[in-house]
Amino acid sequence: MERVETIAGARSLLGRARSEGLTVGFVPTMGYLHEGHLTLIRKARESCGYVVASIFVNPTQFGPGEDYETYPRDPERDAALAGEAGADVLFCPSVREMYPDGYATYVTVEGMTTKLCGVFRPTHFRGVATVVAKLFNIVDPDLAFFGEKDYQQLLVVRRMAADLNMRVRVVGVPTVREADGLAMSSRNVYLNQSERAAAVVLSRSLEAARRAHAAGERRAAELSGLVRRMIEAEPLARVDYVEIYGLPDLTDIELVDGPALLALAVRFGKTRLIDNTVLP
Amino acid sequence: MERVETIAGARSLLGRARSEGLTVGFVPTMGYLHEGHLTLIRKARESCGYVVASIFVNPTQFGPGEDYETYPRDPERDAALAGEAGADVLFCPSVREMYPDGYATYVTVEGMTTKLCGVFRPTHFRGVATVVAKLFNIVDPDLAFFGEKDYQQLLVVRRMAADLNMRVRVVGVPTVREADGLAMSSRNVYLNQSERAAAVVLSRSLEAARRAHAAGERRAAELSGLVRRMIEAEPLARVDYVEIYGLPDLTDIELVDGPALLALAVRFGKTRLIDNTVLP
Repeated sequence: MERVETIAGARSLLGRARSEGLTVGFVPTMGYLHEGHLTLIRKARESCGYVVASIFVNPTQFGPGEDYETYPRDPERDAALAGEAGADVLFCPSVREMYPDGYATYVTVEGMTTKLCGVFRPTHFRGVATVVAKLFNIVDPDLAFFGEKDYQQLLVVRRMAADLNMRVRVVGVPTVREADGLAMSSRNVYLNQSERAAAVVLSRSLEAARRAHAAGERRAAELSGLVRRMIEAEPLARVDYVEIYGLPDLTDIELVDGPALLALAVRFGKTRLIDNTVLP
Repeated sequence: MERVETIAGARSLLGRARSEGLTVGFVPTMGYLHEGHLTLIRKARESCGYVVASIFVNPTQFGPGEDYETYPRDPERDAALAGEAGADVLFCPSVREMYPDGYATYVTVEGMTTKLCGVFRPTHFRGVATVVAKLFNIVDPDLAFFGEKDYQQLLVVRRMAADLNMRVRVVGVPTVREADGLAMSSRNVYLNQSERAAAVVLSRSLEAARRAHAAGERRAAELSGLVRRMIEAEPLARVDYVEIYGLPDLTDIELVDGPALLALAVRFGKTRLIDNTVLP
């Protein structure tokens, strides 16, 4: 695996790969890789001749008071893991390389970004859409792989790529979970032992809603209420939101009579976790 | 010359051209072509193996009450002129092709877009940056040609393309003028005879400022004041702005001690005209 830190360097490697006719798969990450990221890289490896992963803790998607400075980083371990999972290139640009002096351009996706996490993190998806647009233009991938754990992010990126007529196909990959059901996240390391134990309520409550839906419950408020009550029964949990929206554009719905996203964000101490399930 | 109305059709033609190793030059326009546009197409022809022009009256760059509905259109004449000037392809998408149902993504360039025309047309450059980002992604040109008449637009497009890491090189082409100095514009057809005669004051006042600068005047307020006074002496003219900013990011300056843009927007009846000169 080659490691490259400059945009020009990444372009040069990619130009060579494309001139050999290789399909390019891309996995953008913020590093501190876990099994979820590695699953994305392996998926890319299965379907593409050339696999690029990137690690960039993107400052523009963190709000004031969020954990940009303290976001966990371990570049050497990340490089070893990405290589084992099948990446051909690891692109790790500096903040200055991505946002040089005078930088002024932002990409926004309207509508869906003012819901769910967008309410609590008003500039987050603008940062995501902007950095992903930049990375897509640098890597010019045929396929790009995103985890469904950040489902709203997946929808925003897919909408942005389609709206801006990018040729990339955005592929969603199911959430990878710990043995007890907790969705893998780089932020799980923030949890202390009792918070870690309590956090299992997230996946369990989503599972309960899936069963209620399978048993015939279609009222969105009932399904989200069921999840909320289960989480609120956990003393260490503080709910930011538990909501259901229609897919793919996060439309308001009262009845789940087509594909819908049941998503939640919950704080355990200072750690904010998200999870979701798609109701068919 | 081939005419194509769909994005897929344009991509297919461009894929063929690129597979032949041709350099792609691109001239995006809103149609109603005049000698200014044709100069851009000829420039593209000189330096590129394959030349794409587009005609799209972009609704997102017109504000409420502006002339989107009445903007002059003549697609048959445009096609003949573009072909004669050397275009290989004329891409003329519908509004629905560019902005299908559910469209939600916008590109903004901060800072420089809140000055000059951005004060009077607050959503204009967002529309420009968005449609140009889309067109660049569809055409994927090596070079794109923009007239310096819309100098602020040229700066916004250049900033956007650099910031989003697009591989295109944005080329500015000097303003083409009528014999008496009036900058060519599709909107000149709106002028009645007396307005048309009065409009010559724009280029004359800019020329006077250039002479004053050449003679040693460096105070920005003096140079813009000279232009403003000449225009205000013309009874049919109503000034929107006459301003000087430093290049390339339209920084505030008091002294012209490096490249600066002296730009103006002036209304004659219902017609708003812009013009500018770069002070070296």
